[in-house]
Parts: sequence; structure tokens; C-alpha cells
Amino acid sequence: MRDIAVFTGSAHPDLAAEICEHLGVPLLPTRISRFANDCIEVQLEGNCRERDVFLIQPLVPPTQEHLAELLFMLDAARGASAGRITVVLPHYAYARSDKKDAPRISIGGRLVADLLTTAGANRVLAMTLHSPQVHGFFSIPVDHLHALRELAHHFRGYDLSNTVVVSPDLGNAKEAAAFARLLGIEVAAGAKQRFADDKVVINSIIGEVGDRDVIVLDDEIAKGSTVFELLARLRERNVRSVRVACTHGLLTNDAVQRLAAEKEVEEIVCTNTVPIPPSKRHPKLTVISVASALAEAMRRIHNGESVSALFH
Amino acid sequence: MRDIAVFTGSAHPDLAAEICEHLGVPLLPTRISRFANDCIEVQLEGNCRERDVFLIQPLVPPTQEHLAELLFMLDAARGASAGRITVVLPHYAYARSDKKDAPRISIGGRLVADLLTTAGANRVLAMTLHSPQVHGFFSIPVDHLHALRELAHHFRGYDLSNTVVVSPDLGNAKEAAAFARLLGIEVAAGAKQRFADDKVVINSIIGEVGDRDVIVLDDEIAKGSTVFELLARLRERNVRSVRVACTHGLLTNDAVQRLAAEKEVEEIVCTNTVPIPPSKRHPKLTVISVASALAEAMRRIHNGESVSALFH
Amino acid sequence: MRDIAVFTGSAHPDLAAEICEHLGVPLLPTRISRFANDCIEVQLEGNCRERDVFLIQPLVPPTQEHLAELLFMLDAARGASAGRITVVLPHYAYARSDKKDAPRISIGGRLVADLLTTAGANRVLAMTLHSPQVHGFFSIPVDHLHALRELAHHFRGYDLSNTVVVSPDLGNAKEAAAFARLLGIEVAAGAKQRFADDKVVINSIIGEVGDRDVIVLDDEIAKGSTVFELLARLRERNVRSVRVACTHGLLTNDAVQRLAAEKEVEEIVCTNTVPIPPSKRHPKLTVISVASALAEAMRRIHNGESVSALFH
Amino acid sequence: MRDIAVFTGSAHPDLAAEICEHLGVPLLPTRISRFANDCIEVQLEGNCRERDVFLIQPLVPPTQEHLAELLFMLDAARGASAGRITVVLPHYAYARSDKKDAPRISIGGRLVADLLTTAGANRVLAMTLHSPQVHGFFSIPVDHLHALRELAHHFRGYDLSNTVVVSPDLGNAKEAAAFARLLGIEVAAGAKQRFADDKVVINSIIGEVGDRDVIVLDDEIAKGSTVFELLARLRERNVRSVRVACTHGLLTNDAVQRLAAEKEVEEIVCTNTVPIPPSKRHPKLTVISVASALAEAMRRIHNGESVSALFH
Amino acid sequence: MRDIAVFTGSAHPDLAAEICEHLGVPLLPTRISRFANDCIEVQLEGNCRERDVFLIQPLVPPTQEHLAELLFMLDAARGASAGRITVVLPHYAYARSDKKDAPRISIGGRLVADLLTTAGANRVLAMTLHSPQVHGFFSIPVDHLHALRELAHHFRGYDLSNTVVVSPDLGNAKEAAAFARLLGIEVAAGAKQRFADDKVVINSIIGEVGDRDVIVLDDEIAKGSTVFELLARLRERNVRSVRVACTHGLLTNDAVQRLAAEKEVEEIVCTNTVPIPPSKRHPKLTVISVASALAEAMRRIHNGESVSALFH
Amino acid sequence: MRDIAVFTGSAHPDLAAEICEHLGVPLLPTRISRFANDCIEVQLEGNCRERDVFLIQPLVPPTQEHLAELLFMLDAARGASAGRITVVLPHYAYARSDKKDAPRISIGGRLVADLLTTAGANRVLAMTLHSPQVHGFFSIPVDHLHALRELAHHFRGYDLSNTVVVSPDLGNAKEAAAFARLLGIEVAAGAKQRFADDKVVINSIIGEVGDRDVIVLDDEIAKGSTVFELLARLRERNVRSVRVACTHGLLTNDAVQRLAAEKEVEEIVCTNTVPIPPSKRHPKLTVISVASALAEAMRRIHNGESVSALFH
Repeated sequence: MRDIAVFTGSAHPDLAAEICEHLGVPLLPTRISRFANDCIEVQLEGNCRERDVFLIQPLVPPTQEHLAELLFMLDAARGASAGRITVVLPHYAYARSDKKDAPRISIGGRLVADLLTTAGANRVLAMTLHSPQVHGFFSIPVDHLHALRELAHHFRGYDLSNTVVVSPDLGNAKEAAAFARLLGIEVAAGAKQRFADDKVVINSIIGEVGDRDVIVLDDEIAKGSTVFELLARLRERNVRSVRVACTHGLLTNDAVQRLAAEKEVEEIVCTNTVPIPPSKRHPKLTVISVASALAEAMRRIHNGESVSALFH
Repeated sequence: MRDIAVFTGSAHPDLAAEICEHLGVPLLPTRISRFANDCIEVQLEGNCRERDVFLIQPLVPPTQEHLAELLFMLDAARGASAGRITVVLPHYAYARSDKKDAPRISIGGRLVADLLTTAGANRVLAMTLHSPQVHGFFSIPVDHLHALRELAHHFRGYDLSNTVVVSPDLGNAKEAAAFARLLGIEVAAGAKQRFADDKVVINSIIGEVGDRDVIVLDDEIAKGSTVFELLARLRERNVRSVRVACTHGLLTNDAVQRLAAEKEVEEIVCTNTVPIPPSKRHPKLTVISVASALAEAMRRIHNGESVSALFH
Repeated sequence: MRDIAVFTGSAHPDLAAEICEHLGVPLLPTRISRFANDCIEVQLEGNCRERDVFLIQPLVPPTQEHLAELLFMLDAARGASAGRITVVLPHYAYARSDKKDAPRISIGGRLVADLLTTAGANRVLAMTLHSPQVHGFFSIPVDHLHALRELAHHFRGYDLSNTVVVSPDLGNAKEAAAFARLLGIEVAAGAKQRFADDKVVINSIIGEVGDRDVIVLDDEIAKGSTVFELLARLRERNVRSVRVACTHGLLTNDAVQRLAAEKEVEEIVCTNTVPIPPSKRHPKLTVISVASALAEAMRRIHNGESVSALFH
Repeated sequence: MRDIAVFTGSAHPDLAAEICEHLGVPLLPTRISRFANDCIEVQLEGNCRERDVFLIQPLVPPTQEHLAELLFMLDAARGASAGRITVVLPHYAYARSDKKDAPRISIGGRLVADLLTTAGANRVLAMTLHSPQVHGFFSIPVDHLHALRELAHHFRGYDLSNTVVVSPDLGNAKEAAAFARLLGIEVAAGAKQRFADDKVVINSIIGEVGDRDVIVLDDEIAKGSTVFELLARLRERNVRSVRVACTHGLLTNDAVQRLAAEKEVEEIVCTNTVPIPPSKRHPKLTVISVASALAEAMRRIHNGESVSALFH
Repeated sequence: MRDIAVFTGSAHPDLAAEICEHLGVPLLPTRISRFANDCIEVQLEGNCRERDVFLIQPLVPPTQEHLAELLFMLDAARGASAGRITVVLPHYAYARSDKKDAPRISIGGRLVADLLTTAGANRVLAMTLHSPQVHGFFSIPVDHLHALRELAHHFRGYDLSNTVVVSPDLGNAKEAAAFARLLGIEVAAGAKQRFADDKVVINSIIGEVGDRDVIVLDDEIAKGSTVFELLARLRERNVRSVRVACTHGLLTNDAVQRLAAEKEVEEIVCTNTVPIPPSKRHPKLTVISVASALAEAMRRIHNGESVSALFH
Repeated sequence: MRDIAVFTGSAHPDLAAEICEHLGVPLLPTRISRFANDCIEVQLEGNCRERDVFLIQPLVPPTQEHLAELLFMLDAARGASAGRITVVLPHYAYARSDKKDAPRISIGGRLVADLLTTAGANRVLAMTLHSPQVHGFFSIPVDHLHALRELAHHFRGYDLSNTVVVSPDLGNAKEAAAFARLLGIEVAAGAKQRFADDKVVINSIIGEVGDRDVIVLDDEIAKGSTVFELLARLRERNVRSVRVACTHGLLTNDAVQRLAAEKEVEEIVCTNTVPIPPSKRHPKLTVISVASALAEAMRRIHNGESVSALFH
């Protein structure tokens, strides 16, 4: 079997290093420089020839810069005769752009999938894509992981006898239900629909939440607007406490500070698919690593073992 | 401007003929024959050279046969030097297969999009795709129409003063809201989620429906299971009457008869994107034609006029 | 070397099972289901990851259904990270559609070759293609077997001292000559040409057949029209007996019963590239298995051994 | 409609000039030069931008040189923003290489079709391809002409009351029959099969030829071996006279002189799809121009008129 | 002829507006927004259907952001059924990355050319590419302009009787010679070679420059290092005055201020292919517009007129 | 690891044989034949199935014939199920055609790179490409070797105490500098620019050459015009002796004889990337083999070892 060779761009080197530690392989250096006109140049500083190359790069802000880095890394790996190139995308920001709800707009989720293929990607390892249809945007094989087991492991440390999982909207409720089942507890859901182009909004919570401890589960929290709306509804129903959990903790616009300031919120839990800079650290914020899950998937991809078997 | 040339397969010749009448152009004949070993052969019996060719073929049961016909028609048109080939898909059955919710399954919505392109399609005109992300499965331009205006026109004939539109699930609620707005009435929604792989089901109706006349709106009704479940919930809330409306009336397994047998159901309304054989006709069934909407979109595509402008 | 993984669609599971027995590997299960709107969904129920996957599916009636199944199986295998995907086509019905003898017709043999590639096929193992040029329709490697050795083995059981092989037309005479050589006997040929678009027909038999035992050899017998015409010519020349042999026994329209009813016809021999349902069984019909030949070719493809070496 | 722009390589400038005369357009100059290392460079010396460009180049000996020229012309036209590029192939030598009758050989007919597409061809106009399946080797539209009308026009000048058309083999007999019909006379055929890898040869003439004037019709005559064998058979049957006709008069190895030396041969007729150098001219050789047929097809392609309508 | 539709990204709206003024067409609005996770979304706010779309976007710093914008604009235009899409690249930063002078590096000039094609570009209009080979990196037609006429027009306003054009290195000398010819004066060149991986540097000036007025001409000035080295050599040879001219005035790291501070430097001249922010304005800096040249090329591309004819 | 299988066309069988000797593997036979119409056919006479196939063919005169051979060999290898196909191009003539310096010309270096990929090439091993940008014309991985070590090894046999390396032009000076460094001596360069379309020529020699022994180093010598001009300049500066060295010794138009006739020229050294027929042999001509360098690169490609590591 061909040797493994792992590289990372500048999006999240800590996660890449942690994955490599789990795999017991070195994180090979990548040199990213710029010409005087700002055009980037990438050099992979480790033999790629016939290797099973993995490029780890979550597409997090500055998203376009990290995308360009990844495309150049792919080009370098392909030109260097890599045996196979797997893009590891712990966060795929472009999945948000998955439909055409206005005329003459781009569908970024599909476009970027095609660009990655053009640049040389042979397969993708992704985590918690915003909608499951995004899988079909790729013309190359995709392994799609979820972080539910990692999040569930964390919450098992608590007394969950009075706890319910709440999904902020029904679109994500299937995930929440699977999560609740892992914890052996119940599920509820906010029924919120945004109608950008009209005035109809439906707001409600389906399921019992009154006087309960709540775990709010979402795929991604950026500014947190949806969660804040849900908190207002939960408060009206006199919930006892709230813990907020998500896979992708983008946490922009002081989302951590603002969430933590809500008195019901006892904890904010996210994974490290997105880097959390020191400025976002907070006593109420818990960051759970998905490095071992990603490493295990990479190991199985490398060895030709079933990835689905692992996660079911 | 190149002349228009319209052909149809055997899936729904009536709709094609009606569209051509609206366009004021002849429906050109297509000869579909079979070799002794069942392999089909298609001959387009009208000059395609440099023409703006439209192939009308909803992918309705027997779906795979109709798909094969369409692929062979595309090959024939391309080989005959068509100037541009637009596939008109009033119903795209494969849109149902839009994600990978089990390991090692096909994603038919993406696969068939690629097959159509391989066979020679240059663009697609579709109607009410099952999920909006399916648009992104195509690498060629797609014009995506909805039948809401046609359905709304029908319901404006009724006294709507006590009427509310109900979407069977929140995933389709945006459409229902847009539809309600067209009619100047309110919207409600069933909050139903199917969780194939676990036991959690959330069932509820959000919004006021008690003692009201209800219009149930869905994109597609096949066996009608979802509608029957919704009817049970509506009955518990003492609705006054129910009219069921959808774009794609597949109406399999005696769905018409069984729906019509429910006493609250006063009418079942669908469009003719799917052919309704005489055996499915019923006094309570109203079929509304989308031929003029499709014809107008084709006219605009042919003339290079904005299609989005038409429908907004 | 990667492990082998063999799947079959619903076209001919018996042949697939027999091949797997020869290979000593399990035939892995395939689940083929349908949505309410008839769109199919395929799940391959065995690990494909990095495996050397073989999909066995002769394209026999209902041909278009079986084609669609195969395309969806390919998509599922590719999406499941198969290492290499070989399509095993014991019968390729579309090979009949290999030229454009009328304006604006499809060339199915080329189109389907492209569709298979689009869906994910990496190589093809075919048997007795209708014309040798069809090989060139594929852009992926093709191994093209013939069933002559299997058929010859059968006839060696007879006294061949007074026997001659007769090809129904000269287009197929090269095969008949090779077959006669395997048996150490002589060859003759019918000189029949169909001129669809004019009145000229040439009918004749070249070579000595009078008072001989005849083996008629063709690639495919569907309705049997050509063979019946040849029988009339042979009868005029007082042949002693006739045995009819072919690779692909489609045998439609009661061809077996009608052939068996001819008094000169002592036996009809075909292989099992096409399934023979019980309704077609007849005391005069002998079906010879090509399973071991296909299995041996698959073994060699898997092991990277010469396939041409085997058959020459 | 975009203007037409016609160029030719060095394969057959006379034919190109004659075609342009029929079209009433100038033959634009092409500069073909070579670097010191023999690598060719092509410059098209006429504006191609948005033009409907036709590149006339029969692939005749030195075939590989002319192929390279054509590929470079295509690249130049594409790079110069041609609106559409049609390759005019009065002779496509590679059609001879249309199957794989030995292991590990190239299929030139398919390969060159792909190379032309890679270099920029959008469509092909071909004449009398060696086998009709070669049409399916191209992934771009092909218009396939025959020279029968031009040849028939020539022979109508003779007294045909005692004349029969003879095809050298049955594979070509359909063409011969169509030709005979155009002349209102009968057809016969040699039943000759070459079996490269075995000893079986069938030789015979089907149809009445004794004491008749014969027109032998073939698609291509190179060394003429087949025709010489047929002549021997015809002589045995006491034919009165022989005229030999073909589309592609490659006439290598002194074929003209050797054929003309046969006493029954009164005339050799070919078209100018292949250039006839002065050294091959002979009193018994008649060359018929297909320039007006090609010009008419080009005119119809340019104007989007039916080409099949013309020739049926 | 299809109508023209011109859009611009955020790289250089002033240039786009100026071009549109020359063309007499409106600059259609582009909306570029961002999701909370920084993923961009582009909406073209003007009908593209069947239009001849031009997207103006020099790839200037922040280069990767502007590249992503352009790729999304292409996707939006293609999805909106643009008839043809021309990318106008007044500056193509990635042309600097045109070879592999270290192992395992990207070749950005080729990669980005492929990405633009994947996203939907049909053709490119570029200006003064860093090396002429970059033209060959594109698989779509490229029109490659130079700004020499615009620069020459400016210098004709001076007394040039004692003036010589100096190219900083011989690689660019052909351009300098063509420029000198336009002005009717002489040319000289610095012979400078950078050898990144060794110590050999050759420095020299070929041609007479002593006591002359010098115009230094380069394709691009970023930090200006090369020009400063050349200035040192020119000073040693006692030149009378220096004017520095280039097409692409990136002028990073206070290049304007530092060049202007050199006493021999009387003027710095560049074009507006790269935007010059107010902070870079300086009394010694002259910016010449290439808008009319680009507009004229776009007009000719739109009308199918020769672009090469214009510039020779 | 898959076995290696090496084939050659007719361009340079001696070099291929020598490479195979170094590798210790047989040179497998290739049969190249022609149809009567000059269309070539290639048969690879050795098992390719799953093998690591190398096709050795420098593109030397007759260049177009050798290109066609190579394309057909690729097609045969791909059709024969080669595991991977590496084209070994010791000389790539088309690299000379790398830019568009006139309107409507072909860019052969890019076109041929695409043709090789279409025909089935998976990777390329090239030597001393005319310009480094040509690397970027290929969409498949390229390993680009130089012959400097082999040439240096030869010159180390001389007393180099008074020797200087001279590059005929600055475009090639980087190579010359690297070469000089290998020998531990100094470098100079001719500053020659050809301006095809104007009258400006700059001629000069930068660096000290007077009374020195000179090694002229170029990448390719065909007619030798550049070298003859340089010799005139060197003579003016009273050099002591001249040795001329290059990688690609095309040596057309009696270049060897004419160079040898110059009294300063003591030796002409080239490698065997281009075959040297007996007619070009001369006592002053030394041919150095690059077979072992190519063999070592092939060995490393086959084994997945770093090729760049070898040459740095």
C-alpha cells in the first residue's frame, strides 16, 4: 500500500497537527508564499510521488483565501505525481450556497465542488455538510462524517434525567433526533421558517420543554441569530437551563460573549472544525476535538476499510 | 433567429400537443421503434439542423423507459446537428433521489442530470423540482418554473374568506406561504418529520385551522400517505372542508379514489405535468393545464427574453 | 491486490451466481427499490471501497430497465469508492444500433457506451458483439470474448464426418469459419443481403451442403427470420439434418417452438448469455453455459493476466 | 448568418479550389512552415473570428503528415475565435482501422476522430466512409455523403442495355445495388471473404454476368488486389467488357497501369476525393469531380438546410 | 447580433465604468454579498440570457478575493444562460507563476486558466501578459493586447531627440524595441538575470545611454527592485534624465514615493490596468487610461471583427 | 508493484534499447504497419495489462510521422488495459511552438500536449524542454530532466583552468550558469535578441572571454545559425578555443561539417536524445548518452521514488 502524506494550508494547522498525532505520521510542511502582485505560490515540502496524499483545509474565514490555497495545493500535489489526493474539509462554508433562490446568482456549493475536481481532487472527506444534497454536488466520492458521537460523549458527563434536545428548526431535526437517541433522551424542535421574500413567519416549539434542561443542537453557529430567537421562545416556556451545541463554531460578531451573557445559557459547546482564536475563548465555551474521528476516517480511507461501518 | 423545432417522446404526447398549440408551431413526429432484442431506436422526423430544438418528456412511470427514450432522442437531435437542445421536464422523478442517506446508494438526481448532458442536452426547463438543491445537480442552465399561479387562478373562483392554506410539512411551507399570499389568505403547516432510522416522529399543526376551509398544498402526490396523515390531524381540529392541491399528480395506488372517499375532501386539484389516464378520472378530480406556462417559458427561452421576469 | 467484489442487477442473477461459483467468491446482494414515482434506487450491499468491483448485467429485455439498473449500480459503486469498476455485458443489445442508415436516428451502441462511462464504468467485458466495430464505440478498455469454444465443445460429442458449418450470411462467415476450424470440418455460407430501401435481394448458398448434416451458426437469434429463410434454401439443396447454434438466444415470438417444428431441425443450441425462462424450454433446446469462460476472463482481468492469451 | 471562411492544407488544394469556385467564395491562404526541428506551424491567413470555418483536407498519403497539418489548422482556427469549424474529409484513410482483430492494436478510426475533436473540430463532412459504423466513432455531428450520383451520371452516357453492376464483395453490395438502381440495371456480387488468420476462403459470383458488360463498383481501390481477383472470376464467366469504378482512387503500386493492361478493362473511373498526380494519368482513367457535391453540402450546412434531403 | 451585457466585480469598477462609457452601454450592477461564514454569493443584476456577456475583473490585490469573485460571477452568468462569456483581464497576476523552478510547486498561471474555464469562461481578453507562453495555458481563445500605443502617445508630447528606450532586461527587450520604433528612437537593454539558486549574476547595459534621456519600459512594476538596480547602472553611465513607464502599475511598498525620490527620475508612467488609490498619487506619477483600447477590442469581439488587425 | 513494460516507436530504437539495458528489462517489440492508403496501425507485442507501461519516442524528424506513431502506440496501450502509461520524450520538438507571435497561428506545444492526453498518456518524462513554461502546457504530471550532469562529466576530463562557459543568449543563461557551477568555472553570455518584425538587434557578449577556452552551451542545435553568429563575436574577442555543447543535436543542413570547419572549434558535444545517423559522424563530434539518466528516472517513477531528489 502506498504511503500516506499529509499536508495542511494555513486555515487550521492545529487541527491538522492533532490529526497527524492520532495517525502517528508527520504533518509535512507546506510553503505558501506570494509574488509581489499578491498571486500565491504553494510548495509541498515532502515527497508526494505515488503517495496517498491528504490535504487538510477547512474552508473558514478568510474563506476565499483558504479556498485559493487549497486549489493551489491540489495543483502542486497533482503535478508532483501524487497517487491519490483526498481533500479533508472539516468545514465546507460553500455548502450554504446550495440553491438558486433569486435569478442570476451563483450556486457556490456546486461551483467549488467542480473547482476542487479541476484542481486535482480525487475524493473528499467532509464533516456535517449544511444540507445533505450538497453531497450530490461532487462528481468525486465523498465521505460525509458527523460529529454527533463526539458531542454526545461530552454530554454523557452530565445528569440528563430532565434534559431534552431542541433543534432550532425542523430542517435539522433529524440530526437532533439521532443525537437525542445517542443520549437516551427526548427531542423537541423549533418550527421556524425564514421567508426572505414575504411576510409569513411561523414560530413555535413542538414538543415539551417547560421546566426542562435544554440542549440546543445546530450544525453551525455564526452570528447566532437563530439561536437567540429560539432562546426567547424557550424562555417564554420557562426552561430550566440551556446548553448550546453545534459542529461548526464560527462564532462571529462576539457570538460567544453575547450567548454567554444570556442567563439561561450555561455552556456553549462546539467542535474544532473551525479554529477558535484566543479572543473567542470564554469560561462557558467548551471546544471538543474531532481530530480522532477525522484521523480514523483517514486511516480507513487509506486502508480501504469501510467508513460507513465506523459511523453506524 | 433559428427556427424552433419541438418533439416529444411517448411519456405525455397530449401535454406536448397542447404546448405546441399555444406556441403555434407543429409538434414534429418522433418514431420510436425497437429491435428484436428490445433495444430502442429513435428517429426525429423533422429537420433539426441549426434549429432551436425542444424535447418534451416528463419522466413519469414507466420512468426508466421514458428516460431511455429521452436519452436516445437527445442523441438523435445532436447527431442531426441541432443548434441547441432544451429538455423540457415537466416532472423530474429522479429529483426524489437527492441525497445519500444510506451507504453505497445511487444519487439518481445527480446521475440522470449527468446522463442527459452526456446524451446532448444543452439546457433544461423543469417544473417544481422536489428540492431546490436539485438545481445544482445540473451542469447546464436550468429554468425552474412553479405551477403556483395556475393553481391560484383555479382557487380564486371560490369564496376564500374562511380559507387557510396548509402545507403537509415545513420543508414545503415556503411554497405554501407564497401560494397563500397569491390568494390573500393565511398559511399553516403540518410539522411532520419522517425519521426512517429511528423512532422519533414529531406531529403537529402550526397555525389556526379549526373550523376553517383548508387547501392542502404539496409538490407531488403519489400514494398520498402524507396527505392521509395530515387529514387525520386536520379532522381532530375540526376543519370545515379540505381541498387537496399539488403540481405533480402521480396518484398511484388508487390515490384519487381513496382521497375522494374521505368525507372532508371536496376536491383534488393537480396539474397535467403527469398524464392522468381515464382510469384515474373522478368527479372530485380537477386537472389544471400548465401547457401555457411551459409554452410561454419556451417562447422566452427561444427569444432570449428573461424567464425569471415572467414569474416574479 | 485489491479484493474482488461481484454484484448483479436483476437481468440474469442465475448467470451471475454461476460465475461467482466458478470464481469461488460470494455474489454480493444488490437492493433495487423504487420511489412512489417509479424512479429506481440501487444499494450495493457489500463493501466496495478500493475493491475490484464487477457488475454483471446482460442488457436483455426489458432492455431499457436493465440499462437503467446498470447505470444506477455504476453510480453507487463509484460513489462508494470502488477501486475499479468492470461492467460485464454477456449480451449488449445496443450493439445492433451501430450505424445511421436513416437521417436523424440515434446510434444506440455509441450512446450507451458513453452513458456507461459517464455513470462510472472503467472497463467492459463483453461477449460476441454484433459487429466488431462496436468495440471502437467505447472509450474505455474492452475485453471481447466469443463463445465459440464452448459451442464447439458441445458439438464434438457428435459424429461430424459428414457435417458442414453454414453461416446465414457472409457478414458472419468469418466467425463460422473459425468455428468450423475448431471442429475440423468445412464451412459454407448463405449470401443474403437485406436492402431495406430497394428491391434487390441476392439469395444463394456458397459451398457444398447437399446431403450433409448442417450446423447453422449465428451470433444472435431473436425471432429467427434469417434462419427460417436459410432453412428454406437448405431444404432445396436436400440437406440431411440441421442443428442451429448461436451465442445469444433471445428466442422471441416462440422462436424455439417454431424452429423445433421444422422437421430437419434436430437441435437448437445457444448459450446462457440471455436468460432462458421455463416457458422457452424444449426437448430440442440445449443451453450451454458461458459462466466458466466469463469467470476465467474476470479472474485474469483481476490478476492482470493476458485475456487474449486465453482465447487464442 | 456568419460568413463562411474556407481553408485547405496541402493534401489536395485543387479540390479545395474547385469547391470554392462552386461556392463562389475565395479559398483563403494557409501558410504551413516548419521549425528547424521539423515541427510544423500553421497560420490561417484570413479572418476566422465568428466565421463559419471549413477546413478541407482529405487524409491521403502521406497520411500522417496531412493529419498533423489538419490538427494544427484546427488549433489555429479555434485559437482565432472561429464561430464553428467543420472538417471536410473527402477521404478518411483511418476508417480502414475500425476494429481490433488482434490483441493490443490501435483502432485508428476512433482515435483520430477523438484527436480531431481535441484539436477543435465541431463537425465533420465525410464521403464514402469505409464502413458505416465509423460514423459512430465521432462524438460530433457527421454528414456522410456518397459519390454514387456523380458516378451514375458518368455511366448514363453509355449504352447500358447489356450491363450489370458487380460488387467485389457482399459487404459492399448494398451500395452496388443502390448504384444499379440509379442506372436502372441489374446487380451481381462477388462473394469473397478474406480470413487473415485461417485458410478458409469462399469465392463465387452471385448473379448473372456471362456475356455481359460489367461495371465493377468498390469504395476504394488502392493496390487493386481485390479487383484483380474479381477480374479472374469474371473472365472465367466470359464477361464481354469491364469498367472499374470507385470513389477513392488511391491507385498505388501502378494500379492504373496494371488494371489498364487487362484486356477486358475498358475504363477505370474514380472521383477526385484523392488527388491523381500526372504520373497516374492514363487514357483509360476517368476522374469525376465531387467538388460540386461537397460544395452543395457545405452550402447547406452553412445555411442550416437539410443535407439528407439533398441526397435522398 | 446578441446584445452586449457588461458586468464588473469589485477589483476595478472605475476602469469598467470608463470602458462602458466608451462603448456607450450601461455597466450593469453586480451584487456581491457574504454568508455569515464568509462564503461569497454573486448576483448579476441584469438580464444575461443569450447576451454577449463581458466580465471585467483585473486580478489585482487582494488577488485571491478577486479571483473568487470572478469565478462566482462566471458561474452566475453561465447559470443565467449567457450566450457567450468573455473574461476581461486587464491584469492577470497569475501569469507570474508560469513554470516549475522547484519541485512540488503549483503553476498558478495554468491552474487559474483551467479554473476560469471550469467556471464558465468562453474566451479571454488579456493585456500585456507577463510571458507570451501564458497564452498557451488557456484552452479557450485569448485576445492579447498591449498598451504600447497608449504609452507611446503620451511620450510623443516630449522632445525625444536625445532619448533612448531602455528595457530592464533582455527578456522584455522585444517589447521595448517595438515601443522605440513607435517613437522613432533607439533602444538599449539591461542584461540582468536573477539566478535564485546560485551566485552568478550578470549585470550590464547593452547600447548607448550616456548623456541621454532615458525611458525605462517594463511590463509590470511592483516593488520596483529591478528598476532601482537599473537606475544604479544608468547613473554610473551618466544618463541625463529618466522616465519610468510600465503597463501594470502595482506600485507596492511605496514604490511611487521611493522612485520619485530618485533625482534622475522625472516621471513615472503607468496605465490604469491596476487601480491607483489616492494614497499612491504623486505629482511625478502619470496614469494613462487603456479603457478605450479595451473598449475597442470588446466592440470588435462583439461584432466579430478582427482584433489583430486593429493592433498591427 | 506492477511490472514494467517498455516499448519504442521507430524514432530512436537505439536509445530505447540502451535504456532497457540499464533497467535490466527487455525492450518489447512494436509492430508498425500501414494500410494500402498509408494509414498506420500499431501493435504492441507484449502484455500491457495492468503493467507500468513506458513508451519511448523522441519527437525528431520526420516529426509528424513519429508523433502519429506515438499517438497510435498510446491508443494501443490504453486499449490493452495498461495500468499506467508514461510517455518518454527525450526530445519534444513541438516545444519550439510555444507562443502566438502572429495572428491565427497554432501553438503546437500546447496542442500536442493535449493530443497525447487524448490518446491515453498518463504522465510524461521529458528532457531539456525549449522553454520552462512548456511544462505548464501539459495537464498531466511531467518530470523534466536536464542533461547538464552528463555534459559536465564529459568536460571534467579536460583542463578547465582557463575555461569559461558561454550561453548564446541570456534566455538560456541560467542553464549555462548552473552548468558552469557544476564545473567550478565562470560563465558569460551573448546578448542576442531576434526581432522578427523589426530592425533592432542587440549583439554583445557579457563577461570576460578574451584569451579564454570557451564552452558554448545551448539546449538545441539545428542549423546552428545562432552558434555561428556567436562564434563571430567570440573570434573578435580573441578566444583561444571553442567547444560547442548542447542537449539536442539535431544538426541539420550539415551543421556538424560546417561547425567543424571553423578553426576555433575543437569539439562538438551533444547527447543522444536525437539519433545521430552515420552520415553526421565526424572526428570532432562527441555524442554522450543520456540513457542511464533516463533509465534512472524511469526506475524512480516506477518505484514511486523522488525524481527531483535525484537531480538536485
